[in-house]
Amino acid sequence: MKRRLLLVSNSTLHGSGYLDHCQGNISHFFGRDVKRVLFVPYALHDRDAYTKTARDKFNSYEVDGIHEAPDPVAAVRKAEGIFIGGGNTFRLLKSLYDNKVLTEIRKRDGVPYMGSSAGTNVATVSINTTNDMPIVCPPCFSALSLVPFNINPHFLDPDPHSRHMGESREQRITQYHEEPDTPSVLGLREGSLLLVEGNKATLLGTTRARLFTRGKPTVDYDPGSDLSFLLTH
Amino acid sequence: MKRRLLLVSNSTLHGSGYLDHCQGNISHFFGRDVKRVLFVPYALHDRDAYTKTARDKFNSYEVDGIHEAPDPVAAVRKAEGIFIGGGNTFRLLKSLYDNKVLTEIRKRDGVPYMGSSAGTNVATVSINTTNDMPIVCPPCFSALSLVPFNINPHFLDPDPHSRHMGESREQRITQYHEEPDTPSVLGLREGSLLLVEGNKATLLGTTRARLFTRGKPTVDYDPGSDLSFLLTH
Repeated sequence: MKRRLLLVSNSTLHGSGYLDHCQGNISHFFGRDVKRVLFVPYALHDRDAYTKTARDKFNSYEVDGIHEAPDPVAAVRKAEGIFIGGGNTFRLLKSLYDNKVLTEIRKRDGVPYMGSSAGTNVATVSINTTNDMPIVCPPCFSALSLVPFNINPHFLDPDPHSRHMGESREQRITQYHEEPDTPSVLGLREGSLLLVEGNKATLLGTTRARLFTRGKPTVDYDPGSDLSFLLTH
Repeated sequence: MKRRLLLVSNSTLHGSGYLDHCQGNISHFFGRDVKRVLFVPYALHDRDAYTKTARDKFNSYEVDGIHEAPDPVAAVRKAEGIFIGGGNTFRLLKSLYDNKVLTEIRKRDGVPYMGSSAGTNVATVSINTTNDMPIVCPPCFSALSLVPFNINPHFLDPDPHSRHMGESREQRITQYHEEPDTPSVLGLREGSLLLVEGNKATLLGTTRARLFTRGKPTVDYDPGSDLSFLLTH
């Protein structure tokens, strides 16, 4: 596979603007060969406003909103680069199915794909490890499978001072691994991102990531870690 | 409808034991006519251990685990009272579908039904407003519809000191209401519960509940409030 993926945990880091925290990574990722980026705003309700936000941010590239194209499948076929933005993962996945673009995106191996939050979830095996509320029902939870594992974006350590009794993120992922044949889950804390180039995966950003593998203890990885082993599972 | 429902936000309140915070409500709800309660442990992986927990708690009633019955549908048909425990809402709803008991529970109008957390979610129109991770995929998100609205259990106010950038609970419910024809959502904070008897609904417990109605401002209600108007929507 010639895949080129930039999978970002969170679009906005506390105290900074939209995608500011990974601005350098994004420019480096798309590089100078890409002139136009196809933006997929399906995860938010107001697709026009969301595309404007992306356009303002990506001002060194032409940004095309996939919802503006008369034929979204054709738009994917000719895309030089793809960016799927965050929002609600269920809404995003349902729209990808409804518009029949999942298979098309999968076929564009080698085209730079950037996902943020929900856009990162749909790049993985399934959306089984999203944090979002299931506001709509997609046909199933299977996603693009551009990598053979799942990601939990916005991964959050338990707050020792909290009196709230809902499950911690770690408990939720552990419940996922009680189900049969579930893939590993990489918990990307806010501030971290994963770069995948072919069979090489590198953790970037400023925070550590936690790997959950079914039946094994969890492991934390520092920024800069080589996580290529995750691609061969 | 002769419905009798006790819908609890959370099984455990900070600083107390399993269902301790609503012990009095439970005894009053099932009363002396009910001798046996059918417990549905589908939301947790270890159904035997979970049933033991419920059995230890409900020591003045005989507790039958639905998974111990040779025929779960028959078990529902003869139940004097039903208690669906919390855990993962997706796993719970899928098991209710897999075991074909949804329709049967719906038919048992008048039989006392208690739900806690996930067991409260499945009593409503749909599980679209659960907080849980979608670890398995039920056939759809439609649930028992014993009331004509949805509930968000463990409802949580935003933490003003948090640096986490994931959506607040309120933002998530607002995203739900961006979808067409979505019902009202009652946010039950931990410590609150809803008693429904026929066409009368009363907020019980120690915390306020927040009502989200599509296109309208949110409203908070104190414990003791009459919420019967929700049943006629």
